[in-house]
Amino acid sequence: MEAFTLYGFTGSGNCEKVRMVADFLSLPYQWIETPIFDGAAQTEDFLQSINPAGQVPAIVFADQRTLAQSNAIMLYLAEGSALIPEDAYRRAQMHAWLFWEQYTHEPAIAVRRALIQYRGVDEADIDPALMQKGMAALGLMERSLVDQDWLVKGQMSLADIALMAYTRLAPQGGFSLAPFPAIQDWLARCEQHLTR
Amino acid sequence: MEAFTLYGFTGSGNCEKVRMVADFLSLPYQWIETPIFDGAAQTEDFLQSINPAGQVPAIVFADQRTLAQSNAIMLYLAEGSALIPEDAYRRAQMHAWLFWEQYTHEPAIAVRRALIQYRGVDEADIDPALMQKGMAALGLMERSLVDQDWLVKGQMSLADIALMAYTRLAPQGGFSLAPFPAIQDWLARCEQHLTR
Repeated sequence: MEAFTLYGFTGSGNCEKVRMVADFLSLPYQWIETPIFDGAAQTEDFLQSINPAGQVPAIVFADQRTLAQSNAIMLYLAEGSALIPEDAYRRAQMHAWLFWEQYTHEPAIAVRRALIQYRGVDEADIDPALMQKGMAALGLMERSLVDQDWLVKGQMSLADIALMAYTRLAPQGGFSLAPFPAIQDWLARCEQHLTR
Repeated sequence: MEAFTLYGFTGSGNCEKVRMVADFLSLPYQWIETPIFDGAAQTEDFLQSINPAGQVPAIVFADQRTLAQSNAIMLYLAEGSALIPEDAYRRAQMHAWLFWEQYTHEPAIAVRRALIQYRGVDEADIDPALMQKGMAALGLMERSLVDQDWLVKGQMSLADIALMAYTRLAPQGGFSLAPFPAIQDWLARCEQHLTR
């Protein structure tokens, strides 16, 4: 693969998970720090030539083609690698975790963290539903990890990278990981394998 | 593929898109109508043996293995078919649309529709941000469809099925499709190819 340009924001789990995959697979890339809370992904130029949805991560390949959506980028970069199970059913379970992450985990845990860390919102002013949804999401992960090392049985996969990115940052969103020992053990396992 | 059991709720776009794929590919299955607004996906039995996340669609295969998450199910059922582009970059674009659908489109358009259609909420009491986000999502689709027939250039793919499911129901959520002629043409194209 030719070197590509990765637009991302350090501290965004969605961006960090793409960077973790690229580093794990030793892919050549240039990281462009993109301060999204200063509007860097909303400029006319960014919208026109990088990502019309105005989000990072986004990739520009050597031939100028672009790709957005963190989990779609991970799937593309990791194609044919050990991070994607060869077995069709296990691959389907990995896909299920990836969609669950974006629909259920991220909108609670990452959003509550962003309100506190980047928007300066007082915790007392945050919709209590976010805490409830986030704890329910962590509970579902905990039950899955009690009797297996990885989210998809048998191997570390993109599911683990996608979910670890914001799970390890959950305390910054006010979520205690103390009630979730299996998640804590799993995070330690992930970090043994990943360089960031 | 052996016949499988598909738990779904008629009227849910997430369930209908899985059914559309199964019908398009002439796969053998039994549909179990699951009245989610009466708690049918929250019973002890459903959570234990079908989907611990308490959601439909969910599949139980002949060997009792299970699979959840509409887009993960579609990817599994359609593997190797014409609904998934062979080219890696086009496949990545399809994945990007699938994640965008679950993160951006569904939480605005399907959620606003559900509040009106199933929860009986008065439109005046709905967070105005939902209308704004839904219209922005439709705008992004419109711009993508102005100069190409399908969301991923060159062929109808799972991206079209995933997005058409709730886009055609958007008017039930109070979203007018009148400002989006390219979407209207695309919906008509989709419906020519799909039986539901």
